[in-house]
Amino acid sequence: MARDAILLTPGPLTTTERTKRAMLRDWGSWDSSFIAVTAELRRQLLAIVHGEESHVVVPLQGSGTFAVEAAVATIVPKSGHVLVLDNGAYCKRLGRLATLMGRRTTILGRAEDVPVSADELDAALRADASITHVGFIHCETGTGVLNPMQAVADACARHGKGLIVDAMSSFAALPIDAREVRFDALVAASGKCLEGVPGMGFVFVRNDVIDGAAGNSHSLAMDLHDQHVYMERTGQWRFTPPTHVVAALAEAVRQFVEEGGQPARLARYSANCAALVDGMKALGFVPFLAPEIQAPIIVTFHAPADPAYDFKRFYEAVKARGFILYPGKLTQVETFRVGCIGAIGPAEMKEAVAAVAGAMKELGIGSAAPARG
Amino acid sequence: MARDAILLTPGPLTTTERTKRAMLRDWGSWDSSFIAVTAELRRQLLAIVHGEESHVVVPLQGSGTFAVEAAVATIVPKSGHVLVLDNGAYCKRLGRLATLMGRRTTILGRAEDVPVSADELDAALRADASITHVGFIHCETGTGVLNPMQAVADACARHGKGLIVDAMSSFAALPIDAREVRFDALVAASGKCLEGVPGMGFVFVRNDVIDGAAGNSHSLAMDLHDQHVYMERTGQWRFTPPTHVVAALAEAVRQFVEEGGQPARLARYSANCAALVDGMKALGFVPFLAPEIQAPIIVTFHAPADPAYDFKRFYEAVKARGFILYPGKLTQVETFRVGCIGAIGPAEMKEAVAAVAGAMKELGIGSAAPARG
Repeated sequence: MARDAILLTPGPLTTTERTKRAMLRDWGSWDSSFIAVTAELRRQLLAIVHGEESHVVVPLQGSGTFAVEAAVATIVPKSGHVLVLDNGAYCKRLGRLATLMGRRTTILGRAEDVPVSADELDAALRADASITHVGFIHCETGTGVLNPMQAVADACARHGKGLIVDAMSSFAALPIDAREVRFDALVAASGKCLEGVPGMGFVFVRNDVIDGAAGNSHSLAMDLHDQHVYMERTGQWRFTPPTHVVAALAEAVRQFVEEGGQPARLARYSANCAALVDGMKALGFVPFLAPEIQAPIIVTFHAPADPAYDFKRFYEAVKARGFILYPGKLTQVETFRVGCIGAIGPAEMKEAVAAVAGAMKELGIGSAAPARG
Repeated sequence: MARDAILLTPGPLTTTERTKRAMLRDWGSWDSSFIAVTAELRRQLLAIVHGEESHVVVPLQGSGTFAVEAAVATIVPKSGHVLVLDNGAYCKRLGRLATLMGRRTTILGRAEDVPVSADELDAALRADASITHVGFIHCETGTGVLNPMQAVADACARHGKGLIVDAMSSFAALPIDAREVRFDALVAASGKCLEGVPGMGFVFVRNDVIDGAAGNSHSLAMDLHDQHVYMERTGQWRFTPPTHVVAALAEAVRQFVEEGGQPARLARYSANCAALVDGMKALGFVPFLAPEIQAPIIVTFHAPADPAYDFKRFYEAVKARGFILYPGKLTQVETFRVGCIGAIGPAEMKEAVAAVAGAMKELGIGSAAPARG
């Protein structure tokens, strides 16, 4: 193939050549030029959520999950009690990491094909006054479902509870305005809708919350309060930063701004998602979620019931045509997922649909209809 | 300048163009081609310590400190007791992270300008039977002092204690043979003597130790047992890997092997260190450590007593000539540090000395002699 395979995955994803070329320089992590890269990046990240007056942003080495764990460890005191709104795999992961680190954790479960409910949250907060924080996934990447952030944040605010938002796969694509949505912490990462490369996360924390978070963390590496205080004082990261990843993200954010910021990105991803869903439906595939709760980030499709379908062979046949799919993450129903994010547009999504059609033909999959159509 | 500034820092450091260019491709973290990159990298890392029969290697997202914390969290049970051999800043960091995560920790301190002592360790293990593990820094980057790994490992083996080695700045340059040195865990990272870019660490763990480590970790992200079991089963990282960093490290390891492996790297770094120390001494600078305990990784020099010397101005003047120095990390004595590692040779070290000479002249530093010469 002349070009690299296009990643239809929810991060890592396809980045621009310009973003990758920003990694062709070595940076001294202590040097003023790298300190300036970090400072500018933090300024631009804060601006994306309109959080300049209310929040700080603390970057952290590692994957997005490291940043989620760090947010819980730093924000929730050891005596705290976290209620996790659960409608998918990433919600369960949040619950698991909170439990492991010794925070009291309660799971409020829902089916995977419906959004979490602010009304159920309201009732749960009414019923158990010991809950101090709510853990919430904005777009549950396990299925692609969009959860109601404003209503959940309003319920937390009414009850005076802290809110930790995992906005990993929504940040920079879906609108998030810290002036309207009250959150204690909101977590995202480099290799998602900002279209950087993976290797760092970042957490927006409300000013009064970060100031009161000293000593909460059981972990040195994941102590966002310590990272924040050190960075404010020196401009540096506490421990060796992933310098090339940081430089690539700074370059990716420049392109994000040039494109028109979050509204432009949402428009492109929405067009990607529409091109994908329309094309796949025309081939007979059935999306797992109802359209009104589908975020334009990643789409789960039912696997075809046709006996000629086998995910691994299907994946390889689509890959041979230049596109990388993503496996499903549901236990009850066989599915696969296709990401709509990355440095691609509707033209590439149409090519992806054509690749799927070609793979079906090659493998002799006569019908894309699922078992329970 | 025609070329980028050369980093005389202990990681991030100067990498080859070939290593950086390996980051010009996006990888699907679930894809077989990336699984193959990870598998090959793990095989080659194990071979460097001759650990194929005795150990596994578990990579981890984040900086080296994340991997050190993960090693302690995974290897030391919650009821364990860690004795930390302390002769510098990174020893203290190990002690601090073990304490924070709730492991009982005892510090056995020594001066910063002498190696830790296996005899003192022996006496300490004799005196306190509750100690279960010893934490040890091979080359303490705070000063550059080489600590006696074989003698420390032998003492631990005699007493039946576990040993966790932070080999961050020695791995791949100094000889480490798992067939001769008995360790439970040994930690290093991508952006050090393998000359990759920063963003991931890796931990060698003895087979019986990793098998017994389930459930020790208080942290989901840092659970090396969980990471290991998942990787053995699927070939994948549990959470999003820093794909570009991994690809760069794989490319860096290929060059390491081509160069002649650890002996060749040690020879080059030793030549770098000799060129640096000889040149700096000729300018009147005095190394902080005695030559026989100086590792050829990073050299600490006393700051000149000359009133015209100011580290920040000195740093900027050397940087203007194309070389990035590193600040000292001692509280008692004013120093600065110069790394000998990275994709550079003695020619670059001589240029660095010339840059220091030029900076002295520009700033009017008449003498490099320290206060207490």
